[in-house]
Amino acid sequence: MSDSNAYPRLGINHDDFRNAAHALVDQIIDYNTTAAERQAFPDVKPGFMRPLLPDQAPEEAENWPEVFSDIEKVIMKGMTHWKSSGFLAFFPTASSYPALLGDMLISAVTCVGFTWAASPSCTEFETVMMDWLAKALNLPEFFIHNGTGPGGGVIQGTASEATLMTLLSARSKKIRSQLSKDPQKSHHDINKRFVAYASNVSHSSVERAGKIALVDMRLLEADDEGSLRGKTLLDAIKEDKRNGRIPLYVCATIGTTACCTYDNLMEIGTICEKEGIWLHIDAAYAGSALLCPELRYIAKGLEFASSFNFNPHKWMMVNFDCSALWFKDSTYAINAMNVDPLYLRHEEKSSAIDYMHWQIPLGRRFRAIKLWFVLRMIGLEGLRSHVRRGIAEAKHFESLVEKDKRFEIMFPVTLGLVCIRLKIEKWDNEKLNEVNRKLYDAIHADRRFFLTPSSVKEKFFIRIATGSSNCTTAKLDECWAVILEMAAKLLNENISTDN
Amino acid sequence: MSDSNAYPRLGINHDDFRNAAHALVDQIIDYNTTAAERQAFPDVKPGFMRPLLPDQAPEEAENWPEVFSDIEKVIMKGMTHWKSSGFLAFFPTASSYPALLGDMLISAVTCVGFTWAASPSCTEFETVMMDWLAKALNLPEFFIHNGTGPGGGVIQGTASEATLMTLLSARSKKIRSQLSKDPQKSHHDINKRFVAYASNVSHSSVERAGKIALVDMRLLEADDEGSLRGKTLLDAIKEDKRNGRIPLYVCATIGTTACCTYDNLMEIGTICEKEGIWLHIDAAYAGSALLCPELRYIAKGLEFASSFNFNPHKWMMVNFDCSALWFKDSTYAINAMNVDPLYLRHEEKSSAIDYMHWQIPLGRRFRAIKLWFVLRMIGLEGLRSHVRRGIAEAKHFESLVEKDKRFEIMFPVTLGLVCIRLKIEKWDNEKLNEVNRKLYDAIHADRRFFLTPSSVKEKFFIRIATGSSNCTTAKLDECWAVILEMAAKLLNENISTDN
Repeated sequence: MSDSNAYPRLGINHDDFRNAAHALVDQIIDYNTTAAERQAFPDVKPGFMRPLLPDQAPEEAENWPEVFSDIEKVIMKGMTHWKSSGFLAFFPTASSYPALLGDMLISAVTCVGFTWAASPSCTEFETVMMDWLAKALNLPEFFIHNGTGPGGGVIQGTASEATLMTLLSARSKKIRSQLSKDPQKSHHDINKRFVAYASNVSHSSVERAGKIALVDMRLLEADDEGSLRGKTLLDAIKEDKRNGRIPLYVCATIGTTACCTYDNLMEIGTICEKEGIWLHIDAAYAGSALLCPELRYIAKGLEFASSFNFNPHKWMMVNFDCSALWFKDSTYAINAMNVDPLYLRHEEKSSAIDYMHWQIPLGRRFRAIKLWFVLRMIGLEGLRSHVRRGIAEAKHFESLVEKDKRFEIMFPVTLGLVCIRLKIEKWDNEKLNEVNRKLYDAIHADRRFFLTPSSVKEKFFIRIATGSSNCTTAKLDECWAVILEMAAKLLNENISTDN
Repeated sequence: MSDSNAYPRLGINHDDFRNAAHALVDQIIDYNTTAAERQAFPDVKPGFMRPLLPDQAPEEAENWPEVFSDIEKVIMKGMTHWKSSGFLAFFPTASSYPALLGDMLISAVTCVGFTWAASPSCTEFETVMMDWLAKALNLPEFFIHNGTGPGGGVIQGTASEATLMTLLSARSKKIRSQLSKDPQKSHHDINKRFVAYASNVSHSSVERAGKIALVDMRLLEADDEGSLRGKTLLDAIKEDKRNGRIPLYVCATIGTTACCTYDNLMEIGTICEKEGIWLHIDAAYAGSALLCPELRYIAKGLEFASSFNFNPHKWMMVNFDCSALWFKDSTYAINAMNVDPLYLRHEEKSSAIDYMHWQIPLGRRFRAIKLWFVLRMIGLEGLRSHVRRGIAEAKHFESLVEKDKRFEIMFPVTLGLVCIRLKIEKWDNEKLNEVNRKLYDAIHADRRFFLTPSSVKEKFFIRIATGSSNCTTAKLDECWAVILEMAAKLLNENISTDN
């Protein structure tokens, strides 16, 4: 190394990188071959990590072998292994080799594509990929860019950001239309009158979007099937209008996180259209199912949407983060976000998309690359198989539970989620909640499986989410055996305390 | 392959992944060895990409070699090469091999760390890394977690999100304190009275945060050195209070994007402390300079901060995205964001950090890994050299410009940014702006260098940002030659039209 280059500008030189990367690739393969057998939830307590690490960064560079050996010793120590076959919690997060190759290339090109000029490829490639995806899901034509707009798709980091972006777009649109009627009004006074709606089974990020945007978010009662119905919405709208409020936005969910239920898009959509309300459809989890023609019935009424979002990083084999959002008319998003300083302006501004106006952050990675790798190296048929396998697994688990009359399946099993609880006839709901909470705690303490609890209409239940890369029917049999084992202990205990 | 496994769950099998990854690693090395010589800004027009791609995703999986060969043919076609030695636009984005290795591991473990339980390692490792970083920058003690809080750091995606998060935290804090005085008030009526401040040289994302949070953001006039001064702020506060407004938040910038100038933290901080105003310090670009003791004078007054943010993904060799944010008291962020549904609750809730409450999205990648790889494999001394090299390059360029009396250096060159314009005595500002705009356009059309224009106090100028991994003094000499060449043509033209 010459003196003027005493410090390597890429941190390490090319050959050392090649060697390190090869070692890491082997380690990643090793992780993928062992992940299924790893304990899903780790045996650690808060504060476990600090003693494993020095309390400050080193002054001088350390070698790769030292860092490399700490991956297993430090990082893996307290990992929740989302790829463990015992991980049936939350919804699975996607993980595939094509997406990983995509992430490598994304990191290597390090372009930050806030405007078209910041990287024309990054922007235009994304518009084409979002069109590919819209067609693969059979989304309404108005969501497709085709180079012209005003509709089109954009990759967000998460569904929470997508929900917030659409609420802000709706807010900006309606403030403008109200100001055009009465330019003397303050936007605060207009905003104060806005009211938005979602079901009380919708994801927490919907309520949170309301907090951030300072728009009152009414969580309306879902029916017994966990579905928000038209009548409930209409009653709320009428009541709010009587009180001088302005109905602004509805977030309808296809495949709720709590219990994988579906709001009634046909009923809700008709009302939103009539009332001039922005309809956002959150299909974060279930959206991937639309790849399969036989499953598209879950999204009947999609044509009423002003915006639609789902997470390829959940069930479509694209590693986190990749959340796909479409606007029927992107103008409102752009109006909501555009502040346009000179240092971000460029000569093609009028004819090109600047995605920074379609999202909360300004900077953005070239995430369309991993979507492309997955779509091409797995293919639509491959992705459909993946979705169908997850559903078959859930159906298998459902069939196990159905055989045991002490258990109740809380909601119809349509995709890869089964919601169950112990239901002993003589106990009231309070007692049932207490027992099922104990059951959950016992399963969690056992550590063979990691499940998630949930609660709808004050009924506590346990979620079993299938479809992860290492989920198998054999493993689900084991999980059911563990649940039965814990339930047996618990029921014995309860019977004895009842006596 | 057995029939039950007809579809490989990781997209491709382990051996195919190893081969593909090795090919990609070689391609990445090839990109890094050729990137310096690539044209920074591509010769493409909006719409160039669509004809290069099929209009839908393939039904069946394609092989890696087909996909691989399209990287150069499709992706690279319209890339803005941020690693080109001719790229002196915006601020450079970080790119190093250690960070790339980190990104590979992050993608491979695919954990989504919204809560502690979702991945204890992901959360706790980040708290320790943020403490390492706080110490490396010599930040005030109250920003360090030390496992107890209430202060501490968190990795955000971008500085825009950090600014928004801190504004929302300030808003929530003040709404609560106002409601505690008068519980009958509506939060809308309180919010309506809020006013936030930043200089008119601050980043566009500050104004945008105000739009999103629906908080009026006053952009106050910076002084001739591009600095927001205490008197300006105090006058605005007094005026606003006279009008019944509630001063809420100040975003002070250390190293503005437009011209790398510095708000006066000592003056601003004293006022914020006295008035009970949240002081956020945006050091997105310049924060990395605090690694060097001799540069810490730029952040005098940092101890007044309620929150502080900078982007390791700009100048600290951590590939995008990695934006470091610290709160003096994280309680206010948590209060602003927490909605807490059951499916995200876990048994360690009271004693552990749930980072989802510290950020806009819920989901998050294990980004601390790449920070760790960079800090260890480059070391603090290595990172300091990197910062010092970028400054030396800027000083070199400054010395070139200083020799030519037709050019003006607009702001003192303190870090890696030089702002220049042609300044011919006989022309007024309007004419100067027109000529400099033409000069910028000519340089841009020439394509040998990609620079960014900016404007402060209605003076248009050209920014030259040094410090990227492939910037060299030799290349800066070339850039200066190009500027002189274009200026000569332009001045000849102008002289002839003047006659």
